[in-house]
Amino acid sequence: MDFSIIRVARVVMNVTDLERSRKYYADALGFIETESDDENIFLRGLEEYHHHSLVLKKADQPGVHAIGYKVQQDQDLDELEKLFAAKGLKTKWLPEGAQHVVGRALRVHDISGIPLEFYAKMDKTERLLQRYDLYRGARVQRIDHVNCFVPDVQKAYDFYTKELGFACSEYTAAENESIWAAWLHRKQNVHDQAFMNGDGPRLHHVGFWLSDPLALIHACDMLASMGYGGSIERGPGRHGISNAFFLYLRDPDGNRIELYNGDYLTSDPDFEPVRWDINDPRRQTFWGHKAPDSWFNEGTPFLDIDTGMEVEIKAATLEQKKPEFII
Amino acid sequence: MDFSIIRVARVVMNVTDLERSRKYYADALGFIETESDDENIFLRGLEEYHHHSLVLKKADQPGVHAIGYKVQQDQDLDELEKLFAAKGLKTKWLPEGAQHVVGRALRVHDISGIPLEFYAKMDKTERLLQRYDLYRGARVQRIDHVNCFVPDVQKAYDFYTKELGFACSEYTAAENESIWAAWLHRKQNVHDQAFMNGDGPRLHHVGFWLSDPLALIHACDMLASMGYGGSIERGPGRHGISNAFFLYLRDPDGNRIELYNGDYLTSDPDFEPVRWDINDPRRQTFWGHKAPDSWFNEGTPFLDIDTGMEVEIKAATLEQKKPEFII
Amino acid sequence: MDFSIIRVARVVMNVTDLERSRKYYADALGFIETESDDENIFLRGLEEYHHHSLVLKKADQPGVHAIGYKVQQDQDLDELEKLFAAKGLKTKWLPEGAQHVVGRALRVHDISGIPLEFYAKMDKTERLLQRYDLYRGARVQRIDHVNCFVPDVQKAYDFYTKELGFACSEYTAAENESIWAAWLHRKQNVHDQAFMNGDGPRLHHVGFWLSDPLALIHACDMLASMGYGGSIERGPGRHGISNAFFLYLRDPDGNRIELYNGDYLTSDPDFEPVRWDINDPRRQTFWGHKAPDSWFNEGTPFLDIDTGMEVEIKAATLEQKKPEFII
Amino acid sequence: MDFSIIRVARVVMNVTDLERSRKYYADALGFIETESDDENIFLRGLEEYHHHSLVLKKADQPGVHAIGYKVQQDQDLDELEKLFAAKGLKTKWLPEGAQHVVGRALRVHDISGIPLEFYAKMDKTERLLQRYDLYRGARVQRIDHVNCFVPDVQKAYDFYTKELGFACSEYTAAENESIWAAWLHRKQNVHDQAFMNGDGPRLHHVGFWLSDPLALIHACDMLASMGYGGSIERGPGRHGISNAFFLYLRDPDGNRIELYNGDYLTSDPDFEPVRWDINDPRRQTFWGHKAPDSWFNEGTPFLDIDTGMEVEIKAATLEQKKPEFII
Repeated sequence: MDFSIIRVARVVMNVTDLERSRKYYADALGFIETESDDENIFLRGLEEYHHHSLVLKKADQPGVHAIGYKVQQDQDLDELEKLFAAKGLKTKWLPEGAQHVVGRALRVHDISGIPLEFYAKMDKTERLLQRYDLYRGARVQRIDHVNCFVPDVQKAYDFYTKELGFACSEYTAAENESIWAAWLHRKQNVHDQAFMNGDGPRLHHVGFWLSDPLALIHACDMLASMGYGGSIERGPGRHGISNAFFLYLRDPDGNRIELYNGDYLTSDPDFEPVRWDINDPRRQTFWGHKAPDSWFNEGTPFLDIDTGMEVEIKAATLEQKKPEFII
Repeated sequence: MDFSIIRVARVVMNVTDLERSRKYYADALGFIETESDDENIFLRGLEEYHHHSLVLKKADQPGVHAIGYKVQQDQDLDELEKLFAAKGLKTKWLPEGAQHVVGRALRVHDISGIPLEFYAKMDKTERLLQRYDLYRGARVQRIDHVNCFVPDVQKAYDFYTKELGFACSEYTAAENESIWAAWLHRKQNVHDQAFMNGDGPRLHHVGFWLSDPLALIHACDMLASMGYGGSIERGPGRHGISNAFFLYLRDPDGNRIELYNGDYLTSDPDFEPVRWDINDPRRQTFWGHKAPDSWFNEGTPFLDIDTGMEVEIKAATLEQKKPEFII
Repeated sequence: MDFSIIRVARVVMNVTDLERSRKYYADALGFIETESDDENIFLRGLEEYHHHSLVLKKADQPGVHAIGYKVQQDQDLDELEKLFAAKGLKTKWLPEGAQHVVGRALRVHDISGIPLEFYAKMDKTERLLQRYDLYRGARVQRIDHVNCFVPDVQKAYDFYTKELGFACSEYTAAENESIWAAWLHRKQNVHDQAFMNGDGPRLHHVGFWLSDPLALIHACDMLASMGYGGSIERGPGRHGISNAFFLYLRDPDGNRIELYNGDYLTSDPDFEPVRWDINDPRRQTFWGHKAPDSWFNEGTPFLDIDTGMEVEIKAATLEQKKPEFII
Repeated sequence: MDFSIIRVARVVMNVTDLERSRKYYADALGFIETESDDENIFLRGLEEYHHHSLVLKKADQPGVHAIGYKVQQDQDLDELEKLFAAKGLKTKWLPEGAQHVVGRALRVHDISGIPLEFYAKMDKTERLLQRYDLYRGARVQRIDHVNCFVPDVQKAYDFYTKELGFACSEYTAAENESIWAAWLHRKQNVHDQAFMNGDGPRLHHVGFWLSDPLALIHACDMLASMGYGGSIERGPGRHGISNAFFLYLRDPDGNRIELYNGDYLTSDPDFEPVRWDINDPRRQTFWGHKAPDSWFNEGTPFLDIDTGMEVEIKAATLEQKKPEFII
């Protein structure tokens, strides 16, 4: 590979009411609002010194424009374009200036149809990590990962590990050792990108890192106090996979957010991926709690990088297990 | 009233396999085992300096022998006997020496048929509060309360508040302001004794106090590590009622234990009981989570103070609401 | 005794700049400001449903007007007046209406010269315990205790335990078992009132209860972020005495505040006071940290209930031990 | 650079009494003892799946044999040998088998005289991350970093950043922008290696990562309970630099250990090092607490890779500031 992807760095997605979303993300969850206009809200976490890690765009209906990955240097973008083009996958350049505060960007659709974006540069802003007086709600520190439904996890796994240089930290094996779900990373923790078997491609959730487990408990209390109790979909609990302490939320448009704390370092090349049997009850929640049906079935559609229309959703290739047994 | 009840102080209940229970309560949950023999295990929390707050007795089937209340002084027992006898309720003296480490005790059945025990004296032992090297699992600090299903909560409420001197901290009101559940206390926090509408009398749970919310999270992790994930019935979560952070567990015999942290001081006589509408979704779990059916339906029978046979269970007088709406 | 004191319930003290104090207490520490005018700020904690537990009065110099105790019922005030008058101690009635939101109050000087206030009634307000959206800074829950320097701890101890009905939870013994410091309570935790040997009477600190230990860590971070790092005098640490996790702060006028979490239940009459040897290094900080000289030497003067002048300070009767060895 | 260093991976150091050290590291701090014999104890943290990250070797006096760095692949060792040899620095090969469970290793002295070790391979063992039943004391998760006194920080900084590929996350600037201390990393958090101005080279401390801040508080309580209160040298507190919540301990031989939690991600090449002025009081402890003299003055000597004799200590080139002003 002649390029180096650093990490998942932002998500650009639609919301239908900016003011309603601001109240949820900034006032309740404590995201920092870097900037906003009539069409966008740019949000970041407390340790983030780049302009944003989440863009909420005003639109008529939900949809994800791009999952943005930061690359090591600008020429990596050219190498990535060659790769995607060689695979017959759609690519599109957004020159510097085309997007607010972001440098030259390459948009593509990956092997599953997911719209990705690569860029090397984003404007910087003040890091607020030690402005504890601004800590609020979930005290969100930074973007951590995204998780997507794809119809063929093996295919996505192969593409990300063999073509894009991701390493696998953990995976769920179904019958015949077919991969039912996989956690893949570039940065040195459990994942930047996870895939799970399901009708897709669809975004399952965007995960944000919290610095301590009690911040997650306080987030629940805060949400309930502000009338957002209904937005708590699953947790708090401990994942068997990743060992993280987690909470899943649905924003006012139904987009799913994970608050996440406590996985581990994956810096070493001799790390052997952790295998979980699809029937292991501790896999989904280490404590044995079941996830609700909505968590297994619902996701946000992706949008085509050219047309802006919803990317076609294909049926999952592996059987959709009942929630009692699947992740 | 010519007597003063201090607080709920112990529960005496059956288990069918002492060794299995020891592993659960002492090894996993971190109760301190003060003493044991072939028939009993005596357990206490880290701040308790009396001999025990939980007696597990070997028996063929589950059952609760007594909910023990500590009184201010020995002569209070005589006054209590007069009261119960005057009400036509069964009483029985257990002279000092009849029970291990406990002074003269009065056993009675209360207005709902629950076997209570009153005593002024129990042998003391070393308090281990600052033996942090012995902290383990849930780091249980002390017994906090019991909660019982009774068929007529209003009747129980009247008896405990008017005859026994309990104060009400919070209650759930059903139609026509009938009391569906009530939290009653003698010591200065939310409850020593709670009652909820249901077929009864049956013990719903015994609650133990933890000193910090993360001890409760660690308890879940610990239980799951030791293969006890299936014993986690509900939570962790925040109660609307009492504001406590909670976890409900089922011991190997199905007896329900609550780990409980974070209610408030109720020392003042002008505290007005907090009223919760039975249809308020934040009442049961402040965050909106529903409790499982088992939590609403299952309990442990009480045993007759004379015969040792199960106390007859009567049908609830108020409608058994669906879990979506009731506590 | 024909009266019943419930608990320490408020402190009335001077500050020299209301706005500066508001920023410290409300903005940084998260006290709730119930009400204020040109002369006073009335503050309370998150679980408090009475109007306030701390009154800051604008004045030219620091001074404590009264330590307020809530009593069970109004006629207790008359009994208390008899007691103080019989002891030849100064008393003064403040009729209902004389003080904002407080009922009839009795002010006295205790045996050490400390101005106390007794009252049965204070106006109520909304309890904000479950308004997690208002939690800020230290998330102060409620007033817990006061600690005073007195020249003769044995005399204060005798007066409070024999005349006022306080119980002793812990004490520090100097040579010949003379009492060097004592922790006395009416409500059911370690103390409402502590005394330590020193030139006095002077207020050492007012203690406020926090619901969890991480709130105390966050308070430090918050204070430092807002430029109040210099106000952290001692801690965070664990007390040997009381087992509480603590932090000592100095407000902008030098008044000392303790944030306090995690002592234990003292409901039982057979609790035996915990004795600490004055030379035990774990007494002051369980972890062995030393307290700074300022903590041993500095305090706030009390004001005479009639003249408003500073109460005369007398020299300590026991030797002032070096910080290495004393509390 | 034709090699890639992954991270600091182990420290090999002397202790004078293995049993005494086992009690401290394993029983009190909760390190996992992978293996031991009459001459060595091999310890690891809960998330570590390699054999160990700390080797305690029995010896007559303290001394550090090597700071071990894991490299990406075996041939990196040859490239590193070339580099050190070209710089005229001493090198020494330890073939596979020469050290227990470690593959071929290169030992060198760095530009300051510090004995380093590079290796690509260490035997693996079971990862105990989800064996919560084995969590104890500080619940140490993994090795995080080392900090060394060196007489010329600028020289060390240049060598590590220009020759070894480290990046700088934060630094302390003295007069004329000379570097007084620097935090350098290969893995993606604040540091693997820090240098501070002082007589050296000497090891200042080895830092271990904890997963949550309360584990650090519990570590203090645990140490105090077991009679190790005297081993707590500094903290708990918040570092201005790195933002980590910290605790410094001295093991029974005086070696310094840091328990460390909560820094941030440093994956991005456009991260600009955070500059701290040497006179900023929040630099050393964000809350303003001063460090004790011992923390500034004491360290453990390094041992020559050939002779095993203590490496000569040279005087610091920058002025040794008073603790009030320096880190």
